[in-house]
This record gives sequence, C-alpha cells and structure tokens, in this order.
Amino acid sequence: MVRVGIMNVTGYAGAELARLLYAHPEAQLSSVSGRSAAGKTLAEVFPHLASYDLTIGEELGEVDFAFSALPHAASAEAVAPLVRDGVPVVDISADFRLRDAQEYARWYGVEHAAPELLSRAAYGLTELNREAVRSSRLVANPGCYPESALLALAPAVKGGIVGPELIIDSKSGVSGAGRAVGLAYHFAEANESVSAYGLGGHRHLPEIVQELAAMWPRRVGEEPDTQPIVTFTPHLIPMTRGILSTCYATLVAGTVRSGEEALDLYREFYKGEPFVRVVDSPPATKQVSGSNMCLVYPTVDPRTERLVVVSVIDNLVKGAAGQAIQNMNAMLGLPETAGLETPAVYP
Amino acid sequence: MVRVGIMNVTGYAGAELARLLYAHPEAQLSSVSGRSAAGKTLAEVFPHLASYDLTIGEELGEVDFAFSALPHAASAEAVAPLVRDGVPVVDISADFRLRDAQEYARWYGVEHAAPELLSRAAYGLTELNREAVRSSRLVANPGCYPESALLALAPAVKGGIVGPELIIDSKSGVSGAGRAVGLAYHFAEANESVSAYGLGGHRHLPEIVQELAAMWPRRVGEEPDTQPIVTFTPHLIPMTRGILSTCYATLVAGTVRSGEEALDLYREFYKGEPFVRVVDSPPATKQVSGSNMCLVYPTVDPRTERLVVVSVIDNLVKGAAGQAIQNMNAMLGLPETAGLETPAVYP
Amino acid sequence: MVRVGIMNVTGYAGAELARLLYAHPEAQLSSVSGRSAAGKTLAEVFPHLASYDLTIGEELGEVDFAFSALPHAASAEAVAPLVRDGVPVVDISADFRLRDAQEYARWYGVEHAAPELLSRAAYGLTELNREAVRSSRLVANPGCYPESALLALAPAVKGGIVGPELIIDSKSGVSGAGRAVGLAYHFAEANESVSAYGLGGHRHLPEIVQELAAMWPRRVGEEPDTQPIVTFTPHLIPMTRGILSTCYATLVAGTVRSGEEALDLYREFYKGEPFVRVVDSPPATKQVSGSNMCLVYPTVDPRTERLVVVSVIDNLVKGAAGQAIQNMNAMLGLPETAGLETPAVYP
Amino acid sequence: MVRVGIMNVTGYAGAELARLLYAHPEAQLSSVSGRSAAGKTLAEVFPHLASYDLTIGEELGEVDFAFSALPHAASAEAVAPLVRDGVPVVDISADFRLRDAQEYARWYGVEHAAPELLSRAAYGLTELNREAVRSSRLVANPGCYPESALLALAPAVKGGIVGPELIIDSKSGVSGAGRAVGLAYHFAEANESVSAYGLGGHRHLPEIVQELAAMWPRRVGEEPDTQPIVTFTPHLIPMTRGILSTCYATLVAGTVRSGEEALDLYREFYKGEPFVRVVDSPPATKQVSGSNMCLVYPTVDPRTERLVVVSVIDNLVKGAAGQAIQNMNAMLGLPETAGLETPAVYP
Repeated sequence: MVRVGIMNVTGYAGAELARLLYAHPEAQLSSVSGRSAAGKTLAEVFPHLASYDLTIGEELGEVDFAFSALPHAASAEAVAPLVRDGVPVVDISADFRLRDAQEYARWYGVEHAAPELLSRAAYGLTELNREAVRSSRLVANPGCYPESALLALAPAVKGGIVGPELIIDSKSGVSGAGRAVGLAYHFAEANESVSAYGLGGHRHLPEIVQELAAMWPRRVGEEPDTQPIVTFTPHLIPMTRGILSTCYATLVAGTVRSGEEALDLYREFYKGEPFVRVVDSPPATKQVSGSNMCLVYPTVDPRTERLVVVSVIDNLVKGAAGQAIQNMNAMLGLPETAGLETPAVYP
Repeated sequence: MVRVGIMNVTGYAGAELARLLYAHPEAQLSSVSGRSAAGKTLAEVFPHLASYDLTIGEELGEVDFAFSALPHAASAEAVAPLVRDGVPVVDISADFRLRDAQEYARWYGVEHAAPELLSRAAYGLTELNREAVRSSRLVANPGCYPESALLALAPAVKGGIVGPELIIDSKSGVSGAGRAVGLAYHFAEANESVSAYGLGGHRHLPEIVQELAAMWPRRVGEEPDTQPIVTFTPHLIPMTRGILSTCYATLVAGTVRSGEEALDLYREFYKGEPFVRVVDSPPATKQVSGSNMCLVYPTVDPRTERLVVVSVIDNLVKGAAGQAIQNMNAMLGLPETAGLETPAVYP
Repeated sequence: MVRVGIMNVTGYAGAELARLLYAHPEAQLSSVSGRSAAGKTLAEVFPHLASYDLTIGEELGEVDFAFSALPHAASAEAVAPLVRDGVPVVDISADFRLRDAQEYARWYGVEHAAPELLSRAAYGLTELNREAVRSSRLVANPGCYPESALLALAPAVKGGIVGPELIIDSKSGVSGAGRAVGLAYHFAEANESVSAYGLGGHRHLPEIVQELAAMWPRRVGEEPDTQPIVTFTPHLIPMTRGILSTCYATLVAGTVRSGEEALDLYREFYKGEPFVRVVDSPPATKQVSGSNMCLVYPTVDPRTERLVVVSVIDNLVKGAAGQAIQNMNAMLGLPETAGLETPAVYP
Repeated sequence: MVRVGIMNVTGYAGAELARLLYAHPEAQLSSVSGRSAAGKTLAEVFPHLASYDLTIGEELGEVDFAFSALPHAASAEAVAPLVRDGVPVVDISADFRLRDAQEYARWYGVEHAAPELLSRAAYGLTELNREAVRSSRLVANPGCYPESALLALAPAVKGGIVGPELIIDSKSGVSGAGRAVGLAYHFAEANESVSAYGLGGHRHLPEIVQELAAMWPRRVGEEPDTQPIVTFTPHLIPMTRGILSTCYATLVAGTVRSGEEALDLYREFYKGEPFVRVVDSPPATKQVSGSNMCLVYPTVDPRTERLVVVSVIDNLVKGAAGQAIQNMNAMLGLPETAGLETPAVYP
C-alpha cells in the first residue's frame, strides 16, 4: 500500500481526497495536516470521515505520496521541500498551473515561492496530457473551471474545427468557493439566487488560455502564435456541487456541419477514456455528483454555424480531488480508475 | 376602479397576476377563470390568495380589462372575441408575440387561431415600445427570456456599438416551466443540478431575433436586412424564481472602449425608467425577487473587446405578471408603476 | 406621516422592516442607523431597497417612532433613552421579553441594561395581548419561535383543553440565524441537510414558558402556579424563510374529542383576526412567505388523544418585522393591517 | 459472485440498489426489471449507471438473490413465486412488514396477496433483529421512517428507561416520496417550504408501533400487553435525501438522569455495530448522505425529565437500499459491511 498524505485536509478539497482515498485499493491515507485543526482527530472535524483513525498534524508525517490542498502561495512553499526530497506530489492549488512565474505574479498578486520547479510540473489534466503526468513527480491539478472547459473544447480545438473566438459561460455550485465563510456564501444570500462574478478577469482565465493555446493546431504558413480569444464568465448558482460549462465557438467552414458530425469527432477523441463520456443529449450536473465522470455534449447551432459544447463535472471530484487521485494513479503506474469507480450519487 | 379579469388563473403567471393586483390602487380583480378548477374558490387553489373572495369560473365574467394566462393557441382563441368586443387585453401567452403567422406555425406547431389580429398587437416590452403599447388594445406580453435578453441588449444594439454576432446564455428558475408536473421539475431531479435545454432551438429564440432585428440601426448604404446572428441557450437551475441572462457581443471598433463608457450609455438609455436600473457591479436574481425590477450590468472584457451584459429579473414578475400589469397601466393611462412599487423580497 | 427610524438596519430584521415600511400608508422611514455601515446609503448595502434615498447613520435622527433591531444588551441600552424621551419603541431584540431581570441574566449571560423599564414593556404578540400593546410606549416584539408556538397553543391553553405536558418541535429557515456569517450557515453546509440544535436549552424557551404560564387558566381550588412543562426543539432546515412549529399536547378528558371540535374552538378564538387564519389541512411555510400571516392547523390524533397543532409563519415577517409593524399600528391607533396587506409571494 | 436481481429498478430505491451493488465485492447485478422501461438499457434511464451493461426486462432473469423495489401489493405478488422457488428475497415494499394481514388490509386498503408468507418474513432491521434476518429467506426491509425512529428508540425502550408515551417528529427529504411526479413534489412547490403530512395516520405508524411493542420489556406483574402510545408526524422538507427523526419520551424515574447516562446506555447498546454511531452532539443528515450510517444522539431535557433522541439517516440508503444490502449480506453469511463501506458524500 502506498502511504498517502494530505496537506490541509480541513478544506473541501482535502476532505474530498480523504473520502475518495478510503475506497482506494492500493493507497492508504496515513497522514493529514491542517494548522487550524492540528491536534484534533479527522473524525472531530468531519463526522463523515469517522471511519478513519487519524489525528491532524501541524505537518505531514512520512509518506510515499503527497497531495497539497493548501491555498496558493502556501502550497508552493510546502510542496518544494517534498519535491526536493523525492516525494511525488499532486498540488491542488494554483501554484504550478501557470508556466510563467510573471503571469502567476500578475494574477495571484504574489511572487512565486518556487519558480525553479515550474518547468518540472506537468499540467494534470490526465486525458489531455497523460504522458507528461506519468513521467512527472510534480503535477499541477487543474482548476475546476479549466477542467470543465478544456475537456469540453479540446476535441474541437485539436481537431481544428473552430476559430479562436471562444466564449465560456460556467455555472458552479457554492462548494467551489471553499469552506471559508463569507456573506456571499451564506445560505440566505446564495439560496434562490444566481449571479455572475469575476467579470473583470477570473484567475482561471489565464490557465484556460494557456492550455488552449498549447493545444492549438499549427498549420503550415500560419502564424505560430495564434492565440485563442477567450471570454470566461463564472456564475454562482444555488447548489453545493457541480459545474456546468457552456462553450461557444465559431465553426471553421468546411469542417463539421452537424451535431452528429461533432458527436462523431468527440466520441473518437475520447474513445477509451474511463472518465469522459460523450453524450447525445444535454447532461445535468446531478448525473455526475460525487463521481469522477465528465459528461460532454457537443452540438451545432444550425442557424449560426456555431459549435456549442456543454460539459458537466462534480467540481470537488473531477474538478479537484478525483482528478488528483487519477493523476496519482497515473504517476504511480496504477490503473487510472483505481478508487474512482463508484457511480454518481443520484438523485 | 377598473374591473379586471384573469383567464387561466390557475397557473403560476395567473396566480402572480392575482397577487400583484391585490395591491393595485386603480384596478380590482373581479373575475377569474380556469377550467380545471372551475367551481372552486381562488383561496382553495391558492391559500396565499385567501384574502380574495372569488370563485373560479369556466369563463370570465364582464370585465373592463382582461389578462390571458392561457397556453398558446388556446389563448388566441379566447382573446379574439374579447378584442372584437373592445375589451383591452394583455396576452401573456406566446400567441401575439411573433408578427408572422407562418413563423408562429413553424415554432409552435399549430396554425394561428386569429392571424387577423397579429397586426393590431403591440409587443409589450414597455420600455422599448411604450408608444405602441399605449395606443394598442391588444398587447403581447414578452416571453420571460426575451424580456431579460432584450433589456440587456437594447441599449447596445440601438446605440450601434455591437456587431450582429450575439450569444445569450440564460439561467432560469424552475417556475419558468409552469405549474404542470414533469419528471424534470421533480424536486429530487431539479435540486442540486443544472442543465442546458432547448439547444436545438427554443421558442423564445425567434421572438428575440424578431425584436433585435426590429431595433437594429439602419445606416446609409447598409443592407436593410442586417440580421442579428443569435445563439440562445437557456439553462434550468435549482431555484424557484429568477432569470439571469449573460449576453455576449463584439464591440464595433471606435465606439465604446470601457466598462465606464458602457455604463454611461446604458444609464442614459434607461434614464427615468422606473423598472430598469443600470448597476455598476454584477447583480443577483435575489435582488429583484418578487418585484418588477430589472437590473442591468454592462461591462467590457478588455482582453477581447467584447461587451458582456448581465441582466436579472423575476421571471414571474418582470418576466410575466408584473410586465403585464405595467402594460395594462400604460394602456389605461395610469401611472406605469401603479401596484408595482413594492421592493423585492430579500433575502 | 409618522417619521419612523430603524436602529441597526443592516441585519435581516432591519432590512425587512425597511422593505415593509415602504408600502406603509401612514408611516415613512426617515432615519436608519447601523454602525458597521454608517456613511453608506441604504441602497449600497441592500440593492433591493434602492428606492429609498437614505444614508445609514451612526445614530438615529429625530423620529416619531423607533424600531430597534439591535442585538440583545445593545438594544436595551439604545432603547432606554428613547423611552425616557417619550419616543414609542418596538424592540425586536430579546431585551424586554422576559419580565424577570434575573431570568434574563441567566439566559443571556449579561446583566440587563435597563431593568427599570421591564415593567413598562408589553409583550408584543398583538393577537394575545392587544390591550397592553395599545397602551404601551415600549413593546417587546416576540421571538420568532415563540410567535409560532404561542399562536399555535394559545387557544388550547386558554380554552383549558390541554394538560401542562407540551412538546414544541420547530423547523426554521436559515435567515433566522441572522446575517452574520458562520460555518453552520455556509450554503454548502446548510443545504441538503437538517439538524436539531439548542437541545440543552434555547433562549426562546423561557419566553415560551413565561407566556404560556401567564395564559394558563386558573381554576377554583387549583394550585395557582401550575407551570407548563415544555420541551422545545428548534431545527435548522435548508430554506431561507419560514418557521413551522409542530406542537403536541395531551387533551384534557371530556373537552375536545375530534379535529372538528378543535377547529371550531380555534376558529372561534381567532375570529376576526386579520393575520391568523385557522386552516383545515396542513399548511406549508410557502403559503405565508413574505407576508404577515400565520396559518394554524389544529388536529386530534384519535389513537392517542393528543392535540397536534401545526403553525406556519414567515420568520422575518410575522416572526419579526411584520409583527413589529403590527405592534406599531396598534400603538399608534392605526388600522393594524396598515402596510401589511400584501399576499404571500408564492411559489 | 452472487447473481443479484432487482425488480422495478426504475424507482429511486431500485436505482440506489444498483448504485450500491456496483461496488459490492461478492455480488453482481445481473438482471433488472421494470415494466414501464422494459427494453431500454439501464444507462438510458439512469445516466449515472452507464457503467452497467444491462437491459431492463419485463421480468427478472435467473438470479441467486432478488430485491423487490415494487410498490406494495404488486410486490407480494411478484415475491411469492420467488420465495416458493427458493430464491432468497429482500422486499423493500411494505408488503411483509406488518405481521397481521388484517392490519395490512386496514392500512393499505387491499387484501394481502400472499398472507401465508407473512409468518416466514423477518423484519429486516438488522441491528435489532439480526438472528431472524440471518436465518430467513424472506426479509421485509423496514420503511424509511421506522428505520430512523426504531434505531433512535430501541436502546431506551429495551433498556426500560422510558414510559409508553412517545412522540416521533420526522423530517424527510423529497426523494422519500419516490420518483413519481406530483404537484407537491414540483420543485417550485417543495422548495423553500416545509409542511407536515399524514397527520391522520401515516402507513409507517402501525409498523413503528408493532416493532416498539415487540421490543417492550415485560416485567413481572406487569400487564402483558403494554402498548406504546405513539404519535408520529412526518414532514416534507426541501432537500433531496435524508431523514431526521426527533423522538420524545418520558423517562422512568430512577433510571437515567442525564445526557451522559443516556449516552452510555446507547453506546453500550450499539457497541460494535458498523452502521450505527452514537454521537455526543446533534447530527446533521448531510453527515450520512449517500452512506449506510445512522447517527443517534440521545439527550435528556433536565427541565422536563424527558429523553429526546435525534437520529439521522439517508432515506435511500440506510432507509432503503443500503439496509436491504446489509440484510442480503446477513442472509448470505457475508460480512454485513460488504459493499457499504464508503463514507458519506459531504458537503
């Protein structure tokens, strides 16, 4: 059994890692840290994890593999020594997602604590970056919104069927904001309400742009640096878990002309993937709640020749902890589905 | 007092009309119909309307003004004789929204029951069509989605600051689906879930396109029939009331360059309007719940030179019953705000 | 117009007072205070109150009538000088509900700031205490739970049909916890969950006991101090507004034997009351949302000869701000229904 | 592997059985039936079960073990031939819960279809009836409310610390009403509302009474047929999953005097039970969502000498499908926890 540790187990992503690892056949959660709750048992903080007999420490004990669910900046600082010690790490924070330390500083308002590690980190969207993940000891787990948007758009972008004008309209449950309290997340404020936020530029935007740009097809004679032109609008909706992203793009003339053709392209692209299922009717977030599945529905608006792709994930699983375990599995040479096979909890 | 009748009071729009009319200083609800509940009192069907002493009839009694909350097709049939008898009517159904009977037949799958009245009907988005509403005896109340989208886009379109490529991504509470039961609206299915629907073409799309096309600026030398190219995606989200529409458009170069400029243009456009408020931060549907207000937030995405406009309404008030009463007020020469001044119910 | 002030307008009860006063025909909100938001406009803090043109002050300006929505202890301190100056006050805090300063200190953990005023305060459950309210200049607005429980039990207790063994099981929406943030009220924690709290003794218990004891019938030869034996369990349920209380009592043999007889007694008791309606089927909180109504459903469990009474209110209206305005109306000799007649917002 | 079948897989209990069996190490779902959906694949009806490759049949195929999730009456009819053929069955319907066919007819309004099997059925609340379940081939799975109430009250009743006067106030999520549509379960009606129902006598009442009476301690000289006097009030609250029951009883003088003593008695009673955890603070349904756990919190109201016990379960798991699998495990000599060990999904 691989001895696994979770840094900052006291947030939602950390707790979700612990929940999912409980069923993992090859890994055992052996150490958890979290400063605010250090000294308490995991069961005291999270009654649903009462089956664990673990005490939360100030720091991680000795482990074979570590997840960091620390906030950005704190995470890079804590991850760096582990990486230097040869402990493979999946970092759920934003710290190793952007490859450019200056871009990181611009969006996160703080200097990167370990810029020398940036080049060693793989972007952990396993389906799109499997080989890099497998061979890396440091994996940056994607943001929840990028996860949903990139899985929705990758087949179209890599297939060369859409132009660079992209609009991503995402709807997220409130757990995406984390376990910290705030008036906007008060039940009486968030319930029976929907709102947009981050219109001036959400931190997941540069991550989405970076990854889309990296996958953009280079054609002979084309400018090498075609940049996708992305507008990304996240919305807060009154539910606990789930992200639905609706992605709009203009079809390149002469490529795909119908929903059926789009479905074929998407099915081919994700053939054999255990955690992405291309569906032929609009999916609902409830269909993936609690599971590591992503459902993707591509369609064509015949009146406008636009591609519209809808994807759904559970933001805490495929958008965080489940994706992280999938990455761990890939890094350790385990079956990618280990510990992640339970169906969604519906209704 | 104007004696007012509601046809098909037993749906959500009908009940909401009755709720709002209770506080109207110049109008009195004097007759209600609804076949399935004929013979029952209004209080039996709707305990919150127990202050009324009205029995639901098969047909309306004698009234000075009528609202139809009947389903489409049935509505045109019931409205036609009233119009012929000179009773002013606001029709909340879709029957008189599309000006072209063939377009109506295409989208609604049924021949129009009173095509001869189409030319006499005014499209009842009062803020955009006040004079026509005032002088008409038959007003087609807008669909809830068009209401939210048109108020969001009108200043930009009429101001000539956006190109014809438009994307409207709308999020609606479940009451928009009406009071009829269905598995998709079962609490256990709709709660904790979000989904897109109508991707193949929602019936509110032609209404949106018709009205946007009508307001499109005609420039000298321009093709007269520039058509907006609209993709409209409605989403069902787990709340009872409210619609938030996020609208995306490309700015015409050299017009508006910043959020501040967009705000100025929008404020000027809606100056003096009692029910549209231009706000300088993203609004939430809860801020208008139960009220006839529409909040509009225009902003510019500086990275992409796109205009993004967010609007929120209560789908049953500004998106249905409140807008209908506003139209009645305009038609009868009453202050437009009569009966509609109560603030939103928050939280 | 009566010039009205609200102290601590920034909580949910304060904001609800402002909402309801907007429609009041005889009173005008002319001054609002709230230390944390002093200097801001009311519209900045509460977008749904944008129709007001008021700035929040550190202290109230000159008013003819004052509401205090301050927390306990702070309220008594702020109310005392107003009372001394002859300004009539309704205090929404708990400070003047318990008649005994020692009992107050025991439950609230603080000495009472104005014990000399306790004997001058009327308990403001208008339906049960109308004359005292009318003749008082200081009214203690009931707690939301006591409001729902006392209206449910008063006819039975005063009618002498139940013994002293009483169980009150209440279910409240999250707005009852106020606008302050806390992990228990985080959407992701409160949503999709129900829990009991206050089992060791909730602060509304002594208030309930005090009022029930005061209304207990004294029979010849009976011990004068028969005390009701009350267990009260509040529950937090995933909704914003509303309280439903289910009250259980043992019927005195030979009094009421059926649900019909209980209904008759209750109907007689509340005859003519504008804000309490006795209903003959189980009510739902949604039927009173946003309104000042209380629905009461008494029934008899024939297998056990127990009386079971279910009541529903909107905790922010009949359980706070609406009840407070009803009290103001009674104190000022206005019609009790002034400003409170709008129907519930349903669905 | 045990080949398992589910009759009527298309309801929520049936679907939940399929979800949980997916992770079962010793059992394999091999046949599913459901008339309305016969011919469709399981994945078509339930996208979250897409990992199964099963087609829904009119009838079950050959299986080693069967679950019936049919409605009452239909279930007894379908179960009888299986029992006669020697196939062990857990019946999730109500058909074999009441031991008395006349009592069954009285409450369910239909003659029992297989009264000769009633004496062979064990009541499947494993924790309280383990030996009978183990040795039976036909197990009646408890109703969801009785499950929560009996686990809350059994230690007190069997321990002889409470008198026969019992009040059970239960709060259930909407999935308890099943997957059939109905206005009361429409999102717009059920959301933001709580209501009581079944006040005239819910069908789970006789089941609760029967099981409490059976466990009632018989003391020397006592009347042999002391009957618990139970009032049971279910409430519908706006969440999908979960039941919280608050149970009230009068303590027998001289037995338990404090919450600590109650906790000790309860802990001793449930010692070693994998699915019942006695907790020392009030639990929330979210803490067991998706899992087979029942949390029980006993406390003493010192002012009234009443025992108050709060229990929480997931109505679809411990209240239906999980309990059924636990029973299957016991019947087949498997570890009772097989397939049921995953933690709750929180938040």
